[in-house]
Amino acid sequence: MKAVRLHHYQEQPRVEEVAEPRITGPHDVIVKIGGAGLCRTDLHIIEGQWVEKSGVTLPYTLGHENAGWVHEMGSAVSNVAVGDTVIVHPLITCGLCHACRAGDDMHCINSAFPGISVDGGMANFLKTSARSVVKLNPSLEPKDIAALADAGLTAYHAVKKAASLLYPGTKAVVIGAGGLGHIGIQCLKALTPAEIIVIDRSQAALDLTKQWGPDHTILADGKHVAKVKELTDGQGAEAVIDFVGEAGAEHDAVSMLRRAGSHYIIGYGGKLNVPTIDIISSEINFIGNLVGNYNDLEELMTLTAQGKVTLHTAMYPLDAANDAIHDLDSGKLRGRGILVPA
Amino acid sequence: MKAVRLHHYQEQPRVEEVAEPRITGPHDVIVKIGGAGLCRTDLHIIEGQWVEKSGVTLPYTLGHENAGWVHEMGSAVSNVAVGDTVIVHPLITCGLCHACRAGDDMHCINSAFPGISVDGGMANFLKTSARSVVKLNPSLEPKDIAALADAGLTAYHAVKKAASLLYPGTKAVVIGAGGLGHIGIQCLKALTPAEIIVIDRSQAALDLTKQWGPDHTILADGKHVAKVKELTDGQGAEAVIDFVGEAGAEHDAVSMLRRAGSHYIIGYGGKLNVPTIDIISSEINFIGNLVGNYNDLEELMTLTAQGKVTLHTAMYPLDAANDAIHDLDSGKLRGRGILVPA
Amino acid sequence: MKAVRLHHYQEQPRVEEVAEPRITGPHDVIVKIGGAGLCRTDLHIIEGQWVEKSGVTLPYTLGHENAGWVHEMGSAVSNVAVGDTVIVHPLITCGLCHACRAGDDMHCINSAFPGISVDGGMANFLKTSARSVVKLNPSLEPKDIAALADAGLTAYHAVKKAASLLYPGTKAVVIGAGGLGHIGIQCLKALTPAEIIVIDRSQAALDLTKQWGPDHTILADGKHVAKVKELTDGQGAEAVIDFVGEAGAEHDAVSMLRRAGSHYIIGYGGKLNVPTIDIISSEINFIGNLVGNYNDLEELMTLTAQGKVTLHTAMYPLDAANDAIHDLDSGKLRGRGILVPA
Amino acid sequence: MKAVRLHHYQEQPRVEEVAEPRITGPHDVIVKIGGAGLCRTDLHIIEGQWVEKSGVTLPYTLGHENAGWVHEMGSAVSNVAVGDTVIVHPLITCGLCHACRAGDDMHCINSAFPGISVDGGMANFLKTSARSVVKLNPSLEPKDIAALADAGLTAYHAVKKAASLLYPGTKAVVIGAGGLGHIGIQCLKALTPAEIIVIDRSQAALDLTKQWGPDHTILADGKHVAKVKELTDGQGAEAVIDFVGEAGAEHDAVSMLRRAGSHYIIGYGGKLNVPTIDIISSEINFIGNLVGNYNDLEELMTLTAQGKVTLHTAMYPLDAANDAIHDLDSGKLRGRGILVPA
Repeated sequence: MKAVRLHHYQEQPRVEEVAEPRITGPHDVIVKIGGAGLCRTDLHIIEGQWVEKSGVTLPYTLGHENAGWVHEMGSAVSNVAVGDTVIVHPLITCGLCHACRAGDDMHCINSAFPGISVDGGMANFLKTSARSVVKLNPSLEPKDIAALADAGLTAYHAVKKAASLLYPGTKAVVIGAGGLGHIGIQCLKALTPAEIIVIDRSQAALDLTKQWGPDHTILADGKHVAKVKELTDGQGAEAVIDFVGEAGAEHDAVSMLRRAGSHYIIGYGGKLNVPTIDIISSEINFIGNLVGNYNDLEELMTLTAQGKVTLHTAMYPLDAANDAIHDLDSGKLRGRGILVPA
Repeated sequence: MKAVRLHHYQEQPRVEEVAEPRITGPHDVIVKIGGAGLCRTDLHIIEGQWVEKSGVTLPYTLGHENAGWVHEMGSAVSNVAVGDTVIVHPLITCGLCHACRAGDDMHCINSAFPGISVDGGMANFLKTSARSVVKLNPSLEPKDIAALADAGLTAYHAVKKAASLLYPGTKAVVIGAGGLGHIGIQCLKALTPAEIIVIDRSQAALDLTKQWGPDHTILADGKHVAKVKELTDGQGAEAVIDFVGEAGAEHDAVSMLRRAGSHYIIGYGGKLNVPTIDIISSEINFIGNLVGNYNDLEELMTLTAQGKVTLHTAMYPLDAANDAIHDLDSGKLRGRGILVPA
Repeated sequence: MKAVRLHHYQEQPRVEEVAEPRITGPHDVIVKIGGAGLCRTDLHIIEGQWVEKSGVTLPYTLGHENAGWVHEMGSAVSNVAVGDTVIVHPLITCGLCHACRAGDDMHCINSAFPGISVDGGMANFLKTSARSVVKLNPSLEPKDIAALADAGLTAYHAVKKAASLLYPGTKAVVIGAGGLGHIGIQCLKALTPAEIIVIDRSQAALDLTKQWGPDHTILADGKHVAKVKELTDGQGAEAVIDFVGEAGAEHDAVSMLRRAGSHYIIGYGGKLNVPTIDIISSEINFIGNLVGNYNDLEELMTLTAQGKVTLHTAMYPLDAANDAIHDLDSGKLRGRGILVPA
Repeated sequence: MKAVRLHHYQEQPRVEEVAEPRITGPHDVIVKIGGAGLCRTDLHIIEGQWVEKSGVTLPYTLGHENAGWVHEMGSAVSNVAVGDTVIVHPLITCGLCHACRAGDDMHCINSAFPGISVDGGMANFLKTSARSVVKLNPSLEPKDIAALADAGLTAYHAVKKAASLLYPGTKAVVIGAGGLGHIGIQCLKALTPAEIIVIDRSQAALDLTKQWGPDHTILADGKHVAKVKELTDGQGAEAVIDFVGEAGAEHDAVSMLRRAGSHYIIGYGGKLNVPTIDIISSEINFIGNLVGNYNDLEELMTLTAQGKVTLHTAMYPLDAANDAIHDLDSGKLRGRGILVPA
């Protein structure tokens, strides 16, 4: 089969022929890929930023945001059948540790991460596990929803955590109107009655969000913190959902918090830097956010099926993976890039 | 009456005669002080660290940790009677804003803070409000429990927030075995089944905690982070309750966290400094903690009445306020210093 | 002033002249009534069903669902000014007991209930307290929103409790498409992503709800429990919100519950009657619901201001109170009846 | 091997030779039984009360409360090894449905219940699954802790749910000082600071509980509801944990509830019978309780290892199963009866 393989850090991956994955364990599921999302994290992997954290041996296949159809499965798999349309939870988890038993899949102590630490889904086939496949309505096209597997799931998970704070009259600030931000806004609309304030550096990005009905959009032009204060009676917002986490956004977020407010950190790259006296005197919180769990993914797919979450995508043939990577890197790619095997 | 008054920053306060407070509003309560706690914050006020945040006009009376007996009260006060033994919640709150109506007294948008922003309780009498007095069993001696009004309340509040994470088998690290730490350990014992690990720079302070039954005490000698890891199967603790918040404790705390763990920040002085990638990849949280609400104080007094929380105190006559301040500043004071009016 | 006064149980109240209420305490607020809602509970009071629970001495003025403008106020009132448009929380609460301090106004141990236990608002003026008035945008007409003070608040409170169970993909059954049910459906839409199934005995009532977008409406024709099962894959709903609570609805509700589901009881008159083995073997819950607290009312008014909650009302002059009562009793009244003083 | 087999309802089971269970699936685990608890539910099964709910075909082996050592296991089992000491969660669950993925094992939609719906553990060997075995410290004797697998787990689960209501100063009433009640009291002590009031019909049973330090014990002599009112300032308790659920206890429980209080139903046999007006006017709740999940069992075993939960047991050889059943039925058995294979 074809696969997008990384051979050397700081070099472009190659699209090349490799052996298809095989079933070796009773829970294995092999998915015929219908679409594999391209993510900024893929750029970071190529650059070498994940060398230590992933521990992966090169070459390997990229792609951690996958959807397709069940192609083959192990003897103990009972939740899907060959031919089922599925979206793939990004982690392969053990199902037996305390975290798994509590539903906190993302903190499984025996997990693997296809596309990060083992072969991923930018290929014709992906090997994953029964615990990672969510069965979908056959009318759904894998390439249309693949980007929800990781980007969408992360946005949903953060919004779900914030939702418990967001009663009528509260304000939620969304920093970053890119791929995750789009889904975040739609999830906020679906799950909460909060007023939504969206901030981005690009007016075009802000304009694009207007179809989902945010209450306010603010250009990040240096006066944006002051504008948030103005929109919140000088007090700040109950929740700031930060899809950027770098380049100053992580500091702005703190300045936008109301007393007892919470800063949800999803984007990364920067550094949180706050005097402890400021944290205690206003009793603010900083909440880390990773990808969601299996049930979160199922819930997000329900929202999608109900038409409450939609995605902007740009399709590329799998063979053109490096074009997609180039477009993402150079800022030409609008919406989420999806690689589609022939 | 006598009062401990601050006339100039960076000078010792004076014990001098001032007029007694008078009832002017229907909710006013004047408390005859039985004991007023001395707190490291008082040193910081004298040094001038609170000039901006308090906005107080000098001279004024110090003392934000007070207990005594109701001496006089306004026409609308119905929850106490003259002569009642009371402990005084540190804030005077409006009772009408959204925060007050939700029980979040400490986020009242119309509050005053006796001893910080208006005249406090290091005096014969203190003026506070009906909403701030908790009626106690008359057998209790105000000077014995005054220190619970602020130090104790803050420790209790933080532990109560952490308690929801602390099921059997979890570990809670307490950083700092001083006044707040003592109460924190006892509250953890009373409210949770967690294993308790206490860390301090002083072996004597650690030894003192042993009467309350922590599971482990660790000297902060540079190997303490490694020891916490060892005691937690290499994974870190579900909760780190940081009563220090400066001098490196705030960084150690982050290193001691388990995946999805929470760092409760109570002490202050230092700076939180964490890359956002570390926050998201382990999904950790930082939780600010201020003084507790009125019901928290009532609950803490219940624990005290049940013998589950005890205090170490050192009594000084009100006239000797500067001796107490000197002893605290020079590290001679063991337990909480309490000023007792003649 | 004019007031609707009950002189004898099981006789119609009289519209007669009485003295205006006077300010006697520092928190008193006198509201010039713009609209007073008529409620089925008023019928029950007239019938004598509340004799024991209310303990009221006849004659007295009915009306527990009130809105208007601040007319006069006590010396300690700071949250409103004369002339402000206000909606009136149904309870007068002390603000000092444990329940009040926790935000659970409805469990205040020193409360009064105008219209039930003391003079109510079917009159030109109502005496209430500073803790009971929610200031509104002056553009709002009291008579348009008065019915939210009790009926609306109760529906909102129940929905808010249920919301924590209602993630995407869950089902909420609303039993009863009358006044409370209407608001309940709108609150469910605003606060949750749940699929909403509405049940009523009247097809007209069901049709009326369609403007708020329930996912399914079911006529209560004897096959409705089976239809709910069909719509929920044979498993029942996560939440059943029962605005009827009598005449069999309270039994149907139990049959519609999914394992671990919750039955929210708001309507009353019937009797819960369930074998304990059924409760434990499916681990179901029964949740009592009273009127909401002050912040709930504020939040509901926010939803109203945002256009997310609207009301059907029928206006009557105060003088025509007995016409309104007759229309309600005989089933002629559509929407909520509102008495409007001249 | 030997097994205690039920051949006909309303006849004693027989201890007889049957074939040993065999590994047939990759997750199967065969446990060599060290102890199997005898439970009042076993009597109910023999009487025929569970015919419909279990759907089991006779003959089959009783025993749903089991502990022992791993004897043999399927190819995909990774969380235990042959020889490990284990306690067995009573349910075999799929690990793939929404409930399992949320940690709500007891609501698995594909579960089996050894001892109820398939062959149980009153035998030399039991077939269960990898998801059902909790590895224990080898120093623990299976026969000493087997009764925690179901009775203990149920009590722990209910207490854990109640714990969130039980802050300092609250009261928890425990109805029933038998096997579950004993564990319930100890769990309340370990998990909450609540005052504990224990009620039972037997003074001897109450006396036995005193070793665990309940605050009050009350004989159920007809004045017990009044006594609870007296101990709770006339207001009732925040939580009533009802391990009886029949013979009037289920009605007494309701009368003991404080406004907004919760009745946790664990025992069964009776019928809840409450007017809806009483449920709404005091806003009380009824909470069903089933056996706990896997993590609950792990947590309970932690409390046991810490010495915070101890059990009273009476051992019988497996061959003497009918003696044990007779003793339980006739009220001669003190503590939990445990069958120990030779």
